[in-house]
Amino acid sequence: MPAPFPRRVLGLDPGSLRTGFGIIDCTIRTEKHVASGCIRATGDDFASRLRQIHVAILELVAEYRPDEVAVEQVFMHRNADSALKLGQARGAALCAAVVSGAAVYEYAPRAIKLAVVGTGAADKAQVSTMVQAMLAICEPDTADASDALAVALCHGQVQRSALRLLAARVAR
Amino acid sequence: MPAPFPRRVLGLDPGSLRTGFGIIDCTIRTEKHVASGCIRATGDDFASRLRQIHVAILELVAEYRPDEVAVEQVFMHRNADSALKLGQARGAALCAAVVSGAAVYEYAPRAIKLAVVGTGAADKAQVSTMVQAMLAICEPDTADASDALAVALCHGQVQRSALRLLAARVAR
Repeated sequence: MPAPFPRRVLGLDPGSLRTGFGIIDCTIRTEKHVASGCIRATGDDFASRLRQIHVAILELVAEYRPDEVAVEQVFMHRNADSALKLGQARGAALCAAVVSGAAVYEYAPRAIKLAVVGTGAADKAQVSTMVQAMLAICEPDTADASDALAVALCHGQVQRSALRLLAARVAR
Repeated sequence: MPAPFPRRVLGLDPGSLRTGFGIIDCTIRTEKHVASGCIRATGDDFASRLRQIHVAILELVAEYRPDEVAVEQVFMHRNADSALKLGQARGAALCAAVVSGAAVYEYAPRAIKLAVVGTGAADKAQVSTMVQAMLAICEPDTADASDALAVALCHGQVQRSALRLLAARVAR
């Protein structure tokens, strides 16, 4: 059964160098922008970069206390080396969120574009424009922040639809 | 400059289903087995598996307080999908260790075999036999625990050699 609204959603777009984040509050009718930005992991030491990502997300979770975490599903990566690096960044970011007890939801890239733009074939610029319009914000700092807000919005919409479906069934 | 002995080393062999761990105390002359075993992550939910790995390593770190963490370096994985899963498990395991402030060291598979068996072309059974002999223990629970102890032993030997080299230079 879908959790009740309102709920706070943390969208994540993890990467070994830049991890986008976007936090929104979802009610049964609206989404409100809370915070967004990009964590930049610096230095040559991969363990230090993982620590930077992990600690930054721990701080975000402590400050904003999201109920749920949404992240883009990764399909067959072309390059095994970059898949390993992406995996490590995802592990570092997600662990910081899940230790708080937040549930994690994954969405396919096409599902995110469909939810935000209305077509699964939308490009990044269209996603960014719709994210700004839906949340009534100026352009997010970076493409990573925009992508993170997009997956958070997708999660909010999917959960809202599930709740409406449930309400309609109960009302019948 | 290498850190002074004695030091406690946590060796890790991360995997999405099984994560081996091995903790040893290294002095300037000997290695002593402290603990080893295997964390089994269960269930279909990948985020829940990451949480299980992460929380188990957090508990190990809180109990044994290792000074350093040693992990096998991953070279070009054949399969991008399994590289992503391995990366996530590595991220979950390493983050739990690095937040305590422990430094992470990576060693190539050949370097580990060379340090433990004396040849970079050793097989798993030879590594396991030598790990048992060097630490005067019975067979470790699993191959994962044995691999984790092997990378911890490798780290101890490399650090000891570095310290001896330094001492010889100072004595000249």
